[in-house]
Amino acid sequence: MSSDRLEVIVDGSITSARGFRAAGVACGLKKTGALDLALVYSPGPCTAAAMYTTNSFQAAPVLYDREVVARHAAALHGVVINSGCANACTGARGLQDAAATAAEAGRLLGVSGEQLAVMSTGVIGAYLPMDKIRAGIATAVEGLGEDVAHGHAAAHAIMTTDTRPKEIAVRARLGDHEFVVAGMVKGAGMISPNMATLLCVLTTDAALAPAPAAQALREAVEAGFNLITVDGDTSTNDTALLLASGESGAERITSVDSAGYALFRDALTHVVVELAKEMVRDGEGASHFVAIRVSGARSRAEAKQVAMSVAKSPLVKTAVYGRDANWGRVACAAGYSGVAIDPQKVTLWLGDMEVFRHGEPLPLDEGRAAALLAEADVAIRIDLGQGAEEVTAWTCDLTHAYVDVNAHYRS
Amino acid sequence: MSSDRLEVIVDGSITSARGFRAAGVACGLKKTGALDLALVYSPGPCTAAAMYTTNSFQAAPVLYDREVVARHAAALHGVVINSGCANACTGARGLQDAAATAAEAGRLLGVSGEQLAVMSTGVIGAYLPMDKIRAGIATAVEGLGEDVAHGHAAAHAIMTTDTRPKEIAVRARLGDHEFVVAGMVKGAGMISPNMATLLCVLTTDAALAPAPAAQALREAVEAGFNLITVDGDTSTNDTALLLASGESGAERITSVDSAGYALFRDALTHVVVELAKEMVRDGEGASHFVAIRVSGARSRAEAKQVAMSVAKSPLVKTAVYGRDANWGRVACAAGYSGVAIDPQKVTLWLGDMEVFRHGEPLPLDEGRAAALLAEADVAIRIDLGQGAEEVTAWTCDLTHAYVDVNAHYRS
Repeated sequence: MSSDRLEVIVDGSITSARGFRAAGVACGLKKTGALDLALVYSPGPCTAAAMYTTNSFQAAPVLYDREVVARHAAALHGVVINSGCANACTGARGLQDAAATAAEAGRLLGVSGEQLAVMSTGVIGAYLPMDKIRAGIATAVEGLGEDVAHGHAAAHAIMTTDTRPKEIAVRARLGDHEFVVAGMVKGAGMISPNMATLLCVLTTDAALAPAPAAQALREAVEAGFNLITVDGDTSTNDTALLLASGESGAERITSVDSAGYALFRDALTHVVVELAKEMVRDGEGASHFVAIRVSGARSRAEAKQVAMSVAKSPLVKTAVYGRDANWGRVACAAGYSGVAIDPQKVTLWLGDMEVFRHGEPLPLDEGRAAALLAEADVAIRIDLGQGAEEVTAWTCDLTHAYVDVNAHYRS
Repeated sequence: MSSDRLEVIVDGSITSARGFRAAGVACGLKKTGALDLALVYSPGPCTAAAMYTTNSFQAAPVLYDREVVARHAAALHGVVINSGCANACTGARGLQDAAATAAEAGRLLGVSGEQLAVMSTGVIGAYLPMDKIRAGIATAVEGLGEDVAHGHAAAHAIMTTDTRPKEIAVRARLGDHEFVVAGMVKGAGMISPNMATLLCVLTTDAALAPAPAAQALREAVEAGFNLITVDGDTSTNDTALLLASGESGAERITSVDSAGYALFRDALTHVVVELAKEMVRDGEGASHFVAIRVSGARSRAEAKQVAMSVAKSPLVKTAVYGRDANWGRVACAAGYSGVAIDPQKVTLWLGDMEVFRHGEPLPLDEGRAAALLAEADVAIRIDLGQGAEEVTAWTCDLTHAYVDVNAHYRS
């Protein structure tokens, strides 16, 4: 990733990209009175690309977006997002509610409802309270603004069990013009790739045709969201939506062979990877951020399979929580990943400390291990010794707080 | 399963099968002073069959047993089992230690070390303290006995985080003779099938040739151990060993076409399924036992894949712990199982209460749901509506106590 050509915008938000307005309001979906409805809107038509959950139970907003984003990939105007209710497993009425949400926002904004996407997150199996949604949309449309404070409010409104909003914006120069890529996501549970388990809105003022926009999104998601896990649960509502307003004035990227494509893809990937890492850092109940690097693999796919097997292991995750240098659990999880591994070729590290080499355990310096595990960021490395490919995946630890958060989620 | 032809032996143990002696002793592997070394011994040679973990990191005792059980499938004499140290990821020295353990027991018992299997469970990556092992073997050989108290002691000695021993014995009549099938297992974490994640010793006084013994073990493990999960982690040490002394006097089962094969397989399956359920019931930190029945599947394999996806979901497991009727998480986990599912054909039940039918949620009776979830045993049913096959898998809930047990396992 050519992050040297990218400049991170301090205090950036989705409105850092020109052409976008946002709002975050409270309409009573969350019992706490917290912000729970976000609107992202571009008066000009945007190029759009989206990726969705692979879950067979696709939530109503996912089914709705699949249709409208495909139909209006060259002229989408924005997205309405609510938290507090996922509108999933809600059948025909759920689909009607998703369409009605978009239609109501479109009516007030003066665009077709079909040119707006919708996203929902929260409890599965409950219907959207449409009176509250309608009232919230009216407030959001009235309150739209293009400063970062409005972007921040939208990032707050999409949160569920997240403890903080997750936003980033970067700037890059293409020819004589600068363009911005920005994004926001919500976590923090039911997080496992395939594709990313999350709601994510990405905005840019770069100008793109639909095909390179879709390809760049695929590449960025594979490098970011598809390499994280909190709990191994892939949600019913995952959606990542990219909106490109084209207002930067930078030359239009018409295909993956265009001069600006690689730069745009790198900027988008940087944004997605940073958001993905932020999601893990704020994973439900997390007290450690764990990076698992698998090197020496025959293929990138095998490296990823081993890394994700370790990243999902409850035993690895509880050991990190307990600051217990129980590296045998890392070997164990690599061993059941489904990738053929020869223990005689494997080396393991905790941080920079080698703990296992070519089938044999090394003497463990417990003091050094304790110091490494006292840090908030923990690095685990596995070299498989059978190739040249590598992948890093990210996860968090499994804590008492994760159980707290999830034992009584509906109440 | 023809359990009507089977009689459960009250207070049974592995010594309930004629021809077997057992011992369970403390040799200092566990800091608490609890029993930590077991010996199961038959003076007469036994037919033997075994199944092992599919983990690439196979522990030294697994590598050792693969050789000796294959070589002496018609003449094994028993097994030495220690808890407190898994002898896994221990390289060449680990293999020597496994062989030395068997050799020492063989020397004292007057048989070849190669006619004894070994099993280890506990921390991965540590060497066996051979002085303690040798002393423990001497005590165990001296203390061998064939009453049930000796069987119970052995079942205690193989425990790690188990809160109680898991044993069962059943009796069946074949022609003019009765035979017994008995078993013991240890759980309680790093439990996920493929094959079963556990140590298990099965004894019988039925007479069997190696081939039908191996086939019956495969069928029983598929029906039992391969349908349970505690935490989705498949261990490095899983081994299930069947020893058949032939001392019942019942006719020898020479092939799967023998008259007694189906009865023996059913008896063995009953023993394995009951032990599997006991393992889940005593899963680390468990407060609920959860049976997940998937019906209406196109194949048994697909039914199992959906059931195990639900059984492994941390979100389903924490919801059961919190007595939260959050059935949307069940739908979600079924949806990401990898099996193609049409939500319009799916029906979900919590206990006998239908909660979702053919794509639509049903009104939830929260009082009835609370009563169902207050029970220790929780039943979840998913009908996929696309075929006639069904499978039931078993899991436990994910609790604060699971995190307690696993955050500081080595210390």
